[in-house]
Amino acid sequence: MKIAIAGASGYTGVELLKVLQDLDINQITSRQYNGKKLKEVFPFFTGTKLENLTFEKELDIEKSDFFFLCLPHEASLELVYKLYKHGKKVIDLSGAYRIKDTSKYPTFYGFKHRYKSILDKAVYGLPEIFKNEIKNAQIVANPGCYPTATILATYPAVKENLIKDNSIIVSAYSGISGAGRGLKQQFHYPEAFGDSYAYKPKNHRHIPEMEEIINLFTDKHINVRFTPHILPVSRGMIATVNFKIDKDENTLKDIYKKVYKDEPFIRIVEQPSHTKYVNGTNYCDIFVSVDERTGYATIISVIDNLGKGASLQAVQNFNIMTGRKETAGLNLLPTYP
Amino acid sequence: MKIAIAGASGYTGVELLKVLQDLDINQITSRQYNGKKLKEVFPFFTGTKLENLTFEKELDIEKSDFFFLCLPHEASLELVYKLYKHGKKVIDLSGAYRIKDTSKYPTFYGFKHRYKSILDKAVYGLPEIFKNEIKNAQIVANPGCYPTATILATYPAVKENLIKDNSIIVSAYSGISGAGRGLKQQFHYPEAFGDSYAYKPKNHRHIPEMEEIINLFTDKHINVRFTPHILPVSRGMIATVNFKIDKDENTLKDIYKKVYKDEPFIRIVEQPSHTKYVNGTNYCDIFVSVDERTGYATIISVIDNLGKGASLQAVQNFNIMTGRKETAGLNLLPTYP
Amino acid sequence: MKIAIAGASGYTGVELLKVLQDLDINQITSRQYNGKKLKEVFPFFTGTKLENLTFEKELDIEKSDFFFLCLPHEASLELVYKLYKHGKKVIDLSGAYRIKDTSKYPTFYGFKHRYKSILDKAVYGLPEIFKNEIKNAQIVANPGCYPTATILATYPAVKENLIKDNSIIVSAYSGISGAGRGLKQQFHYPEAFGDSYAYKPKNHRHIPEMEEIINLFTDKHINVRFTPHILPVSRGMIATVNFKIDKDENTLKDIYKKVYKDEPFIRIVEQPSHTKYVNGTNYCDIFVSVDERTGYATIISVIDNLGKGASLQAVQNFNIMTGRKETAGLNLLPTYP
Amino acid sequence: MKIAIAGASGYTGVELLKVLQDLDINQITSRQYNGKKLKEVFPFFTGTKLENLTFEKELDIEKSDFFFLCLPHEASLELVYKLYKHGKKVIDLSGAYRIKDTSKYPTFYGFKHRYKSILDKAVYGLPEIFKNEIKNAQIVANPGCYPTATILATYPAVKENLIKDNSIIVSAYSGISGAGRGLKQQFHYPEAFGDSYAYKPKNHRHIPEMEEIINLFTDKHINVRFTPHILPVSRGMIATVNFKIDKDENTLKDIYKKVYKDEPFIRIVEQPSHTKYVNGTNYCDIFVSVDERTGYATIISVIDNLGKGASLQAVQNFNIMTGRKETAGLNLLPTYP
Repeated sequence: MKIAIAGASGYTGVELLKVLQDLDINQITSRQYNGKKLKEVFPFFTGTKLENLTFEKELDIEKSDFFFLCLPHEASLELVYKLYKHGKKVIDLSGAYRIKDTSKYPTFYGFKHRYKSILDKAVYGLPEIFKNEIKNAQIVANPGCYPTATILATYPAVKENLIKDNSIIVSAYSGISGAGRGLKQQFHYPEAFGDSYAYKPKNHRHIPEMEEIINLFTDKHINVRFTPHILPVSRGMIATVNFKIDKDENTLKDIYKKVYKDEPFIRIVEQPSHTKYVNGTNYCDIFVSVDERTGYATIISVIDNLGKGASLQAVQNFNIMTGRKETAGLNLLPTYP
Repeated sequence: MKIAIAGASGYTGVELLKVLQDLDINQITSRQYNGKKLKEVFPFFTGTKLENLTFEKELDIEKSDFFFLCLPHEASLELVYKLYKHGKKVIDLSGAYRIKDTSKYPTFYGFKHRYKSILDKAVYGLPEIFKNEIKNAQIVANPGCYPTATILATYPAVKENLIKDNSIIVSAYSGISGAGRGLKQQFHYPEAFGDSYAYKPKNHRHIPEMEEIINLFTDKHINVRFTPHILPVSRGMIATVNFKIDKDENTLKDIYKKVYKDEPFIRIVEQPSHTKYVNGTNYCDIFVSVDERTGYATIISVIDNLGKGASLQAVQNFNIMTGRKETAGLNLLPTYP
Repeated sequence: MKIAIAGASGYTGVELLKVLQDLDINQITSRQYNGKKLKEVFPFFTGTKLENLTFEKELDIEKSDFFFLCLPHEASLELVYKLYKHGKKVIDLSGAYRIKDTSKYPTFYGFKHRYKSILDKAVYGLPEIFKNEIKNAQIVANPGCYPTATILATYPAVKENLIKDNSIIVSAYSGISGAGRGLKQQFHYPEAFGDSYAYKPKNHRHIPEMEEIINLFTDKHINVRFTPHILPVSRGMIATVNFKIDKDENTLKDIYKKVYKDEPFIRIVEQPSHTKYVNGTNYCDIFVSVDERTGYATIISVIDNLGKGASLQAVQNFNIMTGRKETAGLNLLPTYP
Repeated sequence: MKIAIAGASGYTGVELLKVLQDLDINQITSRQYNGKKLKEVFPFFTGTKLENLTFEKELDIEKSDFFFLCLPHEASLELVYKLYKHGKKVIDLSGAYRIKDTSKYPTFYGFKHRYKSILDKAVYGLPEIFKNEIKNAQIVANPGCYPTATILATYPAVKENLIKDNSIIVSAYSGISGAGRGLKQQFHYPEAFGDSYAYKPKNHRHIPEMEEIINLFTDKHINVRFTPHILPVSRGMIATVNFKIDKDENTLKDIYKKVYKDEPFIRIVEQPSHTKYVNGTNYCDIFVSVDERTGYATIISVIDNLGKGASLQAVQNFNIMTGRKETAGLNLLPTYP
């Protein structure tokens, strides 16, 4: 099986290259680095099997069998369509095929979605919920980082109908690699160094994605009040999730443990996890607590925004789609300290 | 007026020394550095008027008129008592005199509070709420950093009785200087570098402090569900506060602007502020928003945990207590970038 | 006296605005932010006297008396000429008037220097060496950050003719703000986070500047072998300077102390200084040592690249040029920790 | 073959555990964590094969075949002796057996070396120089981080007798993990955050180690003038090495390429490398340049102080000693960005 990575010079692309380096990657694309060798752009690949792989401007669809798309949303929209028509398998890391409700795209992504029928067939690539669908999917829409952290932190409670008042309050912090490799003034090092702040305080585009998935598992309509913030690190994401509940802590913890008991990348932890415990890995560490005094559950999930929040989750999906062991290539430990 | 700073070798003490350097500081204490000159311990004071000020082991109560206490909670408990008896003015930066309900001390601070009558006279040093009381106080209990950020973010809404469901959800992040200068494994640089995590997820000692003040302004009982986290920087604090509300955003914003209109250190901001915009300053920047879709207000307050969250607020209190201009010495701008 | 700052939206411009805020700044320019108020671009100025100062596209030469130029080198080349013709006083923070040998400009700055006669009149703004010339200068060329750190670390030894073998070896590290506010891939936060590396290993443009000044004080020709590196912080600079010497450490230290004994911003320190001890200040801390075993002196100078390395040194020059106290506005302490 | 790691709770121990996790590690020791499971102290091991491995207070020498010692120098001194007597194979990561000249230990390590005969048999574990000796060694003294970077940067030039004036000038910067896991005030996060400084400016204990090895390959006596500095990151080391030379750059570069042509972990790079290119890896990236104007070669070597500078080099030695492929377990790429 020959693998192509489109948009391979972004952070999610590089992460895929690292983890899939022993497989047969035969195409990588990058408009910016067209014609350059991988080691010329990312010198740390020097000495590896991939060092002379060369960035091309455009994909040759016929040349590969499996495609990872690490492209801007609208570029992905079109390319997924083409690949679908050619019968290729695709994992799309953009947001273009994550939301079934096409009415959300103009507001949150700035385009009209023209491929409703493909959208209907695309599977949301969160293996802890949709593993069976992923197995047989041709198109997998790899989840956003914030939705991954938030949905995994709430899914057992939603599924068991435990959330009162139909509201979930999420305060989340993300490392700056989550914003991609494109240059922006606020991410210029001297400015971002040691700085933290909330952004898009009302309408982050991950909100409809979270809500759509969460509401698949309940008859009520649950709202997500979501505030994202910048964490001044390269990688790391924490979602601190609060909701009203009637259960006690042990009961809730047991439910989480049961729901995730066969999931190799979910760890229900006894203390809130650290971003550094999961950096470079595909783990989602989930801390479950109930404050009986106030009647709130506080669930704290921790992932690597480029790991379980993007590329490593894509590899997990790839493994499932291709019949490999789900954990193949993903037995990774963080660099510590 | 002669000024003493007890516990002057901690971070709050050093910040006071910097800001008060032109006044007559005649005593500084430190058990650890007893006998050392300020410039020997903190070489960046070399060349200033204070460079040869020498750390002493114990305070001589008679030698000074005004006392800043930057001590462990239980040490402060006793020393405030003594200073009170000698008729001295005191700003206590510990938690020993912040909470009127003595039943909280054993649980949250590990000691029984023996000085109820002094506690009753101590004024909570949040000038935006208690300026008049501070003017005439002998003992001011300088607020904790998380309570400062949280109370300032909620006070107008509480006062105007706008908070529905009697719950406030706070997710807050603090720079590590908030944990003090004492060594701990989790704050050893290689471990803390680039790391972030929640801690004390249920019972942080600042919760009773927040709730007691907030509930002074309402007939209901409002609960605070509070989750603190570590921000991997030296200084900076963000409190992201959510509560149910019926008002629209403009109405709420107007209320905040009105309540704080004469406050020199509160800025109602149009975009969520950055920790670096307030570092080294006494500002509290407050962003007010209402998400009408979910029915929640999201208020985001940003302070420097050692500034408005500790020492600079202490100087603001000092100014008020001594009849100086409230902003004296506090026209500070952050180091940027 | 009315002051203009051209290029005021860069890091050196912002630093000048902060330190000079109580003076009469009546013009600030920025092509990028033309028409915007200072507080709109840099919100931390909100609440200060300068908050509504508005960026203009071009200077009106007649409107101000004293000009700080924080512009690209070639833009400064022309503007200094114009200001000179109008009889205005100028401190130029670019490299356009630092080197008297015009043959260096094409190689190191990419332009031919057309204003030899003004260049001859421009004074190199290192007050510890050229204070008398600065007093009467119309045009001051404010030194580069690396040259400031290197020249101050070597000047006493050069002047006293102590350097053997005519070579100075400098390894220097700079915070990234030294590279300015313009966006570059290598300074995108995720990439620069926690990274360090040497750059321009052979021909950094500060080399001719250092060598020209150093060789004013010796009959020999002393070469500087200079290697700059990136320090992953916003501000801070260390120059570690080695040269062969015959003197012992005490003798050398005494010479440095004597040469700099009246200089308010030079501290001869007993231990190598820290970048954080000088950040936000105009100090240059110099550690002097001789390793008799190897016959080398090792001098370690530490400055803030935006402080003594740029804007605060410019203010020191401004004070000298305008008859103010040399330290006016510069009694600054670092934010610590 | 059963493997023991003594002092496994330090940073070098944890790094060994990660890389050797698939082998049979049957003993780990730690005084501090005696009785605790690995996952309790380092939660990121949860889910791995090693998670329940338990720290013991003392080694049982008979239970294992191969020993990695990550202990304080003096503890290693004794334990290596015991293990040697029992015929065990040992890689000692301390400095206790690195220097053959016993006269250096009292000055640089504070103890008298009592095991001269074992010291004579111990092999200095720098595979690029001593691979053959390592193959047959019973005791390998794993090199210090600074010596690794410095010796690899100079060895080809020394061996070919190219260094003039018998002096090597080294300015080196190390991430703070190089100082170990023990708590120190200067490495408390708020203080160390964003700070950089030189330390031990004259007599760092790695100097005799460097000089002894370097002088094995020359008839002259070459001195090393070495200045270490703190880089405010967890991991990463740069050594910037200068020496006088008569060769041109291409000739020198060719010599380096030739000497290291079969070495899998040396990369002769065309641009100075970045610490992040080698973090978490066993690479030493070496940049070779000659500045013909000044007559100096500048060699810049970059390693991970815990990688090639400690534990991964230990694994390379282990591979050589046990007949495994030299690169086994070491095909590692950095976490990027």
